[in-house]
Parts: sequence; C-alpha cells; structure tokens
Amino acid sequence: MQIIDGKATAAQIKAEIAEEVERIVAGGGKRPHLAAILVGHDGGSETYVRNKVLACEACGFKSTLLRFEDDITEAELLAEVDQLNQDDDVDGFIVQLPLPRHISEQKVIEAIDYRKDVDGFHPINVGRMAIGLPCYISATPKGILELLKRYHVETSGKKCVILGRSNIVGKPMAQLMMQKQYGDATVTVCHSRSKDLKKECREADIIIAAIGQPDFVTADMVKEGVTVIDVGTTRVPDATKKSGFRLNGDVKYDEVAPKCAYITPVPGGVGPMTICMLMKNTLSAGKKEFFD
Amino acid sequence: MQIIDGKATAAQIKAEIAEEVERIVAGGGKRPHLAAILVGHDGGSETYVRNKVLACEACGFKSTLLRFEDDITEAELLAEVDQLNQDDDVDGFIVQLPLPRHISEQKVIEAIDYRKDVDGFHPINVGRMAIGLPCYISATPKGILELLKRYHVETSGKKCVILGRSNIVGKPMAQLMMQKQYGDATVTVCHSRSKDLKKECREADIIIAAIGQPDFVTADMVKEGVTVIDVGTTRVPDATKKSGFRLNGDVKYDEVAPKCAYITPVPGGVGPMTICMLMKNTLSAGKKEFFD
Repeated sequence: MQIIDGKATAAQIKAEIAEEVERIVAGGGKRPHLAAILVGHDGGSETYVRNKVLACEACGFKSTLLRFEDDITEAELLAEVDQLNQDDDVDGFIVQLPLPRHISEQKVIEAIDYRKDVDGFHPINVGRMAIGLPCYISATPKGILELLKRYHVETSGKKCVILGRSNIVGKPMAQLMMQKQYGDATVTVCHSRSKDLKKECREADIIIAAIGQPDFVTADMVKEGVTVIDVGTTRVPDATKKSGFRLNGDVKYDEVAPKCAYITPVPGGVGPMTICMLMKNTLSAGKKEFFD
Repeated sequence: MQIIDGKATAAQIKAEIAEEVERIVAGGGKRPHLAAILVGHDGGSETYVRNKVLACEACGFKSTLLRFEDDITEAELLAEVDQLNQDDDVDGFIVQLPLPRHISEQKVIEAIDYRKDVDGFHPINVGRMAIGLPCYISATPKGILELLKRYHVETSGKKCVILGRSNIVGKPMAQLMMQKQYGDATVTVCHSRSKDLKKECREADIIIAAIGQPDFVTADMVKEGVTVIDVGTTRVPDATKKSGFRLNGDVKYDEVAPKCAYITPVPGGVGPMTICMLMKNTLSAGKKEFFD
C-alpha cells in the first residue's frame, strides 16, 4: 500500500512552477499575476484566500487581493470583475466563493472573462473541458488527475467509480476520467439514488469519493489492490484537537488503506493539490497557453 | 416487449409544437424563425437540411435557407454567422456540418451567438448543460430523454450503460442521465478501451448504444427486461434495397428485442426525434425560454 502524499506533491509542483517563472522572467517574459476578490469576512474564505496569496509568493507570481465589505452590491461587484477583465496586467483572477446572498454567484462567474477564469467555473471552460478542448480545468479534478499521473496509477481501461455528482468534483471528474486524453477509464457515477453503489465500488479499480459523508467507504466496499482518492473533508468534533474538530474524509481510512494499492489521506491528500492547481492555471494564463 | 416508436412520437411532438405556435401567433406573438446555413452540395447534408425545412413547415415556423458554394472562405462564412447573430428576426440558426476542410468547424460553432445556438454545440450551452443550467441541449441526447419520458421508462436510480463517448451523443448523454433533474440514474460510460463492457451491459437496466458498430450488442450482452436505445445508423450494403444499402443499428435487433422491456428500432427510433428536437429548441428560442 502506498500513501499518495498530496502535500509533498503540491510542494514539488510549486517548486517546478517557481523555476519556470524565473526562467520566463529571466527571458524577458512577464511574471504571472493572479488577482483575488474577497467579499466579507467568512473565516474559511479568509483562510483560503490567504493561502492562495502565500502560494503565489511561493511560485513567484504577482498577486493582488481586492477586499470588499458584505454590503457591496451585485452591480458594484460586477464592475470590479469587469475592471479585472480589462486590466492587461492581470493574467487570471478568482472571486472567492461563497458570496453574500444578495449577489448571484452564477452571474458573477459568467461575468469573468473566460480567458482569465483560472478557477475554471465559467460555462465556456466547463463546456470546453467536456468536449476535450484546451481550457482551465477546475482545481480539485485537475489535482486528482495530477496525483494519479505522478504516482503512475494506470487508468486507461480501468473501472473508475465516482461517488457524488457535484458540479465541483463528481461531474467534471467523470468527464475527465472517461476522456481518452485524460483518464481513458470506464467511468461509473454513483450518488444518493444509486441502488447498487456498494457493488459498483467492489468492482472498481479506482474509487474517487466526493460525497461529504465521513467514513462512508468501508473495507467491505473495496477490492484488494484498489486505488482510493478521498475528496471528503467534513469537520467532525474531536476533543483531542486544539481546534475541537478534525477533517474527516469520505473513506474509513484505517480499515480501507490496508486493501489499497494507493490511497490519499485526509488531510494531506487531495486538499493541498487544489491551491497548487490554481497556481498551475495561473501559470497557463500568464503563458496564454489555452487562449490568446 | 414494447417498441419505442420514434416516428410516431416525433409526429406527435411536431403537432404539439404547431399547435403552440398557432396559439402564440394568435395571441400576437412572433412566429419562430429558424435559419440554416448550408455550404456545398454534400448529399447527406442536402437531405438533412431539406428535412429541417420541411419540419419547420410542419411546425408553423418561418425558415430561411442560406446556401453557399464550397469555396466560401472562413472569413466570409463567419461574416454570415455574424449577420444571423445580429438579425433580430432570426430566433435560432444552425450551420449544417460537415464544413469544407479549409474552414474550422469549431471556430464557426463558437462564432454563433449561444442564445441562438439551437444545435446546442456552443461550449456555453455544453457547459451550462453539464452544470444543470437552462440551455439548448443538442438534438440526439434531448430526443432520447424525450423518448424515455414519453414511454414512462423509469430511469431514477437505475443502472444506465452508455456505449460510446462521442461529443455528440455519449458524453452529453452521460451528463444528462446522471443529473437529478434529467435521468437521475447510475451512469456507466463504456468505450473501445473498456475491459468489462459485456459485463457492464449485462447488469444494465438501460443501454444506450452509440458506437457506430453494426449489430455490436447481442442477446448474451443484455438481461431480461432491459430498455435498449439504439443510436447507431451505419449504412451496410443490402441488395434487397433499391438504394443498395440499409441503415443498421448498433444492436442486433432480432435477437435482443425479445429480451427487452422497451427497444428503439433502426430506422424509426432515435433518428426521427433529432430534427424534432431541433424544432423544440427553435420553439424555445422563439419564446426566449432559456436566454433573454
């Protein structure tokens, strides 16, 4: 059994990105520039954005953080988005979600110039991914592909079961895993309405769990030699932790891990890869890799 | 065993559309207007476009056919697309594929205003479909959903196996069948690289075959009571036909049909539904159902 170390892999990739950025800058090229819009003071969002800014530093990117209070109107926010669209120095930008209720997240996402949409949430990027065209792939699915690749997990022709059908993980993951140029796997998507979920899992060579139910995948649900990617990160109370909680994956790690060829832990598996993949998308934006 | 009669269903739907159009027009509304661009003289394309014009008549739509010779340049064609984008009288339009080699089909598709993209091929519509937003769904997958619905085939929680991963059928079909608001099924996509394709099929409650291999699905590959949707339409030589060929599905109909709860024949199953769904999209365009 090999543990897929997302933390180490992410660090490695950030180092690779930093190297490439220095080469680009040394060659007279432009230093990639990521901007982030943060509305309000949600604790989780604050942390994410801070980590994104730190990751930019680690990668040698320029970063700009634009902060607004909770009472910013939708029109004002859309105007800010438009300014970033117009700003030639900004290669890519994100609007940290969630947004206050009076603002339509979908409207904001669609207002972002898809050529700067490094989160990969704009329908044009979602659509281009679905039909196999160059585009920004959103961070979590992209990070999972990268882990599978770096750990040489064979996917082509394998049976891959995806648990969950969210727009952020399950659906894009399915689209990527079935495509010849990415996973090239036989893909099954299971969800709350699936009747034979356990059976599907037991036949899977690769399981990607993204349902947000702690310890859902148990040892009796997997076969020997399976690869398990655990996307779950539910906060569960834990008195032994200073914070009073721990992050718990969708997989009952202790009993499942011994049967696995590869498994991602929680934390330290998929999690650290997401910001790292945002950095990769920003590098692509700086290089105008996907769009002119 | 019940045969799903696509021809009769399509006729029924066209009659429903015609009725609705007359109500709209009687109420002072605008008659939907579909335009089609046809480049060159490909026999298949000529037939398709002619049938689309006839279907417009049956539905009470206004239709416009714009014909160009094979030597039209890409720039000229893009200018024509732009004119249709600007034309307020045109609710929706299509560019009949394939196009001559010197023209990028993808460029032309992306030049179409997505609000008039009744073929549903623009990345914005593909992306919106993937994340469950209102949009034009392309004709073949939309037609299959409609057949399943009209024949009351239960899909929720069922195991649906899709054979093929094309951008036109397999991929969008998978996305639709897995979504709660459409199929709500457990979806497996199999393709040329799949190892256990036969086994997956034998466990399926619904099989949607779209691989273009005549008679690929045989009786030993399906369980009793399965629903089979056959999207294949391969021309195979047939001396008993005047034309010298017949259309052959992906399913060995004679031996599979007796085991089925429902099955679509070829021809007369999925085929007739496609133009009919283009008409439905045009009606939606006329009503500005999805976009302002």
